[in-house]
Amino acid sequence: MTLHAVPPEGYRILREGDLRDYLAGIPAAAAQLGGPPDGWSINEVGDGNLNLVFIVKGASDGLAVKQALPYVRLVGESWPLPLSRSHYEYLALTHQARLAPGLVPAVLHHDEQLALVAMELLEPHIIMRKGLVAGTIYPAFVDHITIFMARTLFFSSDLALPAAQKKEAIAAFAGNHALCKITEDLIFTDPYRVAEQNRWTSPWLDAAAAQFRDDLDLHVAISRLKLKFLSHAQALLHGDLHTGSIMVTARETRVIDPEFAFYGPMGFDIGAVIANLLMAYLASAGHESEPGARSAFEAWLLETIEQVWSEFARKFLQLWRTEAKGDAYPVSLFPGEAGAARLERERQAYVARLFQDTIGFTAAKIIRRILGLAHNIDFELIEDTRLRATCEARSLRLARKMMVDAASFTTIGAVTQAARAAREWQPEF
Amino acid sequence: MTLHAVPPEGYRILREGDLRDYLAGIPAAAAQLGGPPDGWSINEVGDGNLNLVFIVKGASDGLAVKQALPYVRLVGESWPLPLSRSHYEYLALTHQARLAPGLVPAVLHHDEQLALVAMELLEPHIIMRKGLVAGTIYPAFVDHITIFMARTLFFSSDLALPAAQKKEAIAAFAGNHALCKITEDLIFTDPYRVAEQNRWTSPWLDAAAAQFRDDLDLHVAISRLKLKFLSHAQALLHGDLHTGSIMVTARETRVIDPEFAFYGPMGFDIGAVIANLLMAYLASAGHESEPGARSAFEAWLLETIEQVWSEFARKFLQLWRTEAKGDAYPVSLFPGEAGAARLERERQAYVARLFQDTIGFTAAKIIRRILGLAHNIDFELIEDTRLRATCEARSLRLARKMMVDAASFTTIGAVTQAARAAREWQPEF
Repeated sequence: MTLHAVPPEGYRILREGDLRDYLAGIPAAAAQLGGPPDGWSINEVGDGNLNLVFIVKGASDGLAVKQALPYVRLVGESWPLPLSRSHYEYLALTHQARLAPGLVPAVLHHDEQLALVAMELLEPHIIMRKGLVAGTIYPAFVDHITIFMARTLFFSSDLALPAAQKKEAIAAFAGNHALCKITEDLIFTDPYRVAEQNRWTSPWLDAAAAQFRDDLDLHVAISRLKLKFLSHAQALLHGDLHTGSIMVTARETRVIDPEFAFYGPMGFDIGAVIANLLMAYLASAGHESEPGARSAFEAWLLETIEQVWSEFARKFLQLWRTEAKGDAYPVSLFPGEAGAARLERERQAYVARLFQDTIGFTAAKIIRRILGLAHNIDFELIEDTRLRATCEARSLRLARKMMVDAASFTTIGAVTQAARAAREWQPEF
Repeated sequence: MTLHAVPPEGYRILREGDLRDYLAGIPAAAAQLGGPPDGWSINEVGDGNLNLVFIVKGASDGLAVKQALPYVRLVGESWPLPLSRSHYEYLALTHQARLAPGLVPAVLHHDEQLALVAMELLEPHIIMRKGLVAGTIYPAFVDHITIFMARTLFFSSDLALPAAQKKEAIAAFAGNHALCKITEDLIFTDPYRVAEQNRWTSPWLDAAAAQFRDDLDLHVAISRLKLKFLSHAQALLHGDLHTGSIMVTARETRVIDPEFAFYGPMGFDIGAVIANLLMAYLASAGHESEPGARSAFEAWLLETIEQVWSEFARKFLQLWRTEAKGDAYPVSLFPGEAGAARLERERQAYVARLFQDTIGFTAAKIIRRILGLAHNIDFELIEDTRLRATCEARSLRLARKMMVDAASFTTIGAVTQAARAAREWQPEF
């Protein structure tokens, strides 16, 4: 946490006027915006937890400019956070743009000293989570997100990279540990113990929160997942792949905000997507105008959850069959037809193990949004707190089962079936 | 492999005369040796595969000086190898000296540019493997090696280190990938396929070598172990912990040559020790003057194998109970008596998983010494090649079972029992 605890020489927090002068001096930015700098509109719109985000619009086009603050925006200067996260975000964006072109915002400019990234303005894209709260269906989402995950995860893994290159990549992201620590604390630890920052929909969930703090089977399961997060350098993760880190239109998908990027277990990214879709599904009852009003949307969500896994697995396996240039599973050990068949069985077994990881991480990502510090609008916008708590309790029930009894979920269909059952369950408050 | 492929400015291969002048200019070395430099004896004695090793003796005391060559000594300049391995060896020696004082040679001097480490001369210690071939019992070995492994592995793991510190340590060793690559190729790949460098005791083992190259169950198992070696950053390993990397007297033990050090799976180090003791046991029949002449030695070996595991596990668990300052398994999630009991069960489960890893890596370390490039004198000094092949075939039989059916070995007693059965088995040549 000491890295950049004191902002480096040359860093300053930009105000809107500063940013105008700054961008006017960056030819690529000025050209993208067009017209005289005086005519550019600049608005700080960051509603995330960590950074400043400016929307800049010029005569021809726009830009989004993200600047890291030397502390957690949500909390203030008492919680310092290294500016170096902007460096890792830039590294990750570059990696993702190369592997999943068109699925991340194009970067125009990076300033290491100012901890600033200027990128394409995504319009008319909205944060996917907002669209899901509104009950919007995104028909292109499954294909896009599974391309993004299959390619960024596969091509950073030992299946695709020679070991030397992978070790160098791990080292390149090792300094991003302050961001990892946030995940380690807020996802893998605090929701399961008394922690000042925890909150939940009280009084309805007081008993559930207490149960989760006392549930030793759950504590063993979350600790095993945390250990995996700490020690399993499987692939370069986005690290925060929830529906608030995805911007969408009906036709387009862009994954943003990879500042939590590091080498970790693949299931953490996949689980983030599935967890947030499951929460959208179980929160949906809280947004109905009348019972059943969102049933088509909910059916689409369940189908999407199934396809996120099945399409991810299909694309990942296909990459493995055709692009395996890494040091793991050398094809020379699997010669001939019999060898090819055995390797194919092992690929399926690898993906089955990854599915087990995904189930556990999915559960972890749900629980932290209901009992931990950071909540999401899927639930928070349900004004009737008893109804909100009902949706949350259903999610907790599903998540606990997934975490403690992950092995009983052998297919993604078992997950959606359990989600349907949770949707019908009435907690007793 | 490109790192230092061209030796850096200032590097030169030292001759004996150069070394005299060099050491005379290093006050700590000159003081340790004593007397005028002209009176120092200097002999190059390196019988390892990679480096120069000089024994230097002066009026008062001696020194061992190890210099890395920019290529693999065993093969020559056609196989370049980075000098940076000397840097990693020095880092690892420092780490081990801090955690396991008295169990590694004391370092007097390190020269990064010359890729040179000067350290305490170990006298009258001999390479343990030579002692085992001679049938010598080392009563202090179990205690020493289990202290070494328990402490170096525990204190570099997520059980002992905060995540930030562990990530920095992983990055500090990530550049040692050329040495890891040797392991990846020679242990985890080549013995299972046609490779120019493979050799075995022909013609006796021709059929076994062919079977191992065709055995797809074995290829899946070794590939899973390789994947673990590539991606599981569990602890800082010695990385080459065979009985040729251990020097002993009846009372003392020193672990040397940690130039393969990197963050990997703990079972790889533990398996190296157990594998080399199993090979000493199964080679022993080849060194008997008459049947049964080494039975007390062999009984000691089996007992030692059992104790290496059981004492390692005991010491490791005890460290976990008393020194767990890492981010994994936070004690705050296991409060009260019930919590403490549950955490203790989980510690046992962790060690049981580690045992499974150890079984697999043990098998891998045996097979590579019989079918791969680098063999060991346990077998090589058996002059009757048919008898040598018999000992080797027994080892292969045991190792195959351990690798493919690791789950059936739930205790170390099952391993020694299988070793006893292998000792009695007569291969048909």
